[in-house]
Amino acid sequence: MSSNAQSHIHRAAMKLFSEHGAMQVSVTELAQAAGVARGTIYNNLDDLAGLFDVVALELSLEINARVVRATSRLDDPIRRLAAGVRLYILSATRDPEVGRFLIRFGLSAEALRQLWTGQPLADLIAGRAQGSYDFTDGQINWVIALISGAAIGVIACALERPEAEAEAGMDAAERILLALGVSREDARTHARAPLPPFEES
Amino acid sequence: MSSNAQSHIHRAAMKLFSEHGAMQVSVTELAQAAGVARGTIYNNLDDLAGLFDVVALELSLEINARVVRATSRLDDPIRRLAAGVRLYILSATRDPEVGRFLIRFGLSAEALRQLWTGQPLADLIAGRAQGSYDFTDGQINWVIALISGAAIGVIACALERPEAEAEAGMDAAERILLALGVSREDARTHARAPLPPFEES
Repeated sequence: MSSNAQSHIHRAAMKLFSEHGAMQVSVTELAQAAGVARGTIYNNLDDLAGLFDVVALELSLEINARVVRATSRLDDPIRRLAAGVRLYILSATRDPEVGRFLIRFGLSAEALRQLWTGQPLADLIAGRAQGSYDFTDGQINWVIALISGAAIGVIACALERPEAEAEAGMDAAERILLALGVSREDARTHARAPLPPFEES
Repeated sequence: MSSNAQSHIHRAAMKLFSEHGAMQVSVTELAQAAGVARGTIYNNLDDLAGLFDVVALELSLEINARVVRATSRLDDPIRRLAAGVRLYILSATRDPEVGRFLIRFGLSAEALRQLWTGQPLADLIAGRAQGSYDFTDGQINWVIALISGAAIGVIACALERPEAEAEAGMDAAERILLALGVSREDARTHARAPLPPFEES
């Protein structure tokens, strides 16, 4: 089966959750929503029970990949983190279906582990190496969890007031940098810098 | 029906979620798990679809009430917030069933609205009035969402490493105070002060 079929099924699952608040779906419902045969569902999914977690993780990884591509144009790790937080909030707020999904499923241990690898993790370490951040090796796991949680919290708020999304994103980025130990002046400058071009989904 | 029956049913719903990862339950399952008749379920619940959100909200309000009682012994609003964050993380980590539930259902708009009333909101405003916090009236909603999200993010992390819960709680409280504009020295002092006595659930 193509991974295309799978992502089609995943999007259908997200739609069912978003439209009906469904927290669990049957193979029949999912097949209907995705417009595929029941056999296609069985061929593409191992386990219906953990479906929403899998969908949320893929969704997060997909947003993350776009954020990393966009922020790679910036040459400072602090600025990359600030822009990354703002673009993540922007993505989830402009597509409320995605936003509502991340609020519910975005903070699993697995999502936290898989999202913060590669460039985002390297940027955290680089920011510390250049003296901007203040955390020990033992603190890094919950620093990551705190940043993710803060961003998802602000998404929950921005979905209620989408007109304030850009301002909420800048403010969240600034406060996250402060939480990491960045000086007030630098936090403000980095959090309010122009965003790089970004491909929305 | 007594609210006692209701809280009994709510706890059963949380157990079903925790044990089987159930995201949706039937009246029959719920009646069995709670050890009551199906009629009791119908008499106590309006809507099975939103059940988990209602349970999460009640759970959050119940923890919140205990946290407010415990922190009322402290006379500084900054110290009350820091202790509140630590006790919230402690409650959710010592009872992993509660913790896993809050990670999934704790960031709804309704939960954010209802949790941050009364003393916690008054403390935020008082902290700003005494010059410790830096936020405008327009920012207060997402500042609240950011604090809640950060705390729930750290709960997700602490559930994976319960032995680090106390340290994670202190560090989270310190970073949240920094995010609010508190000076480094004050943030550290308030976040690492002894906790007041706390009645665990």
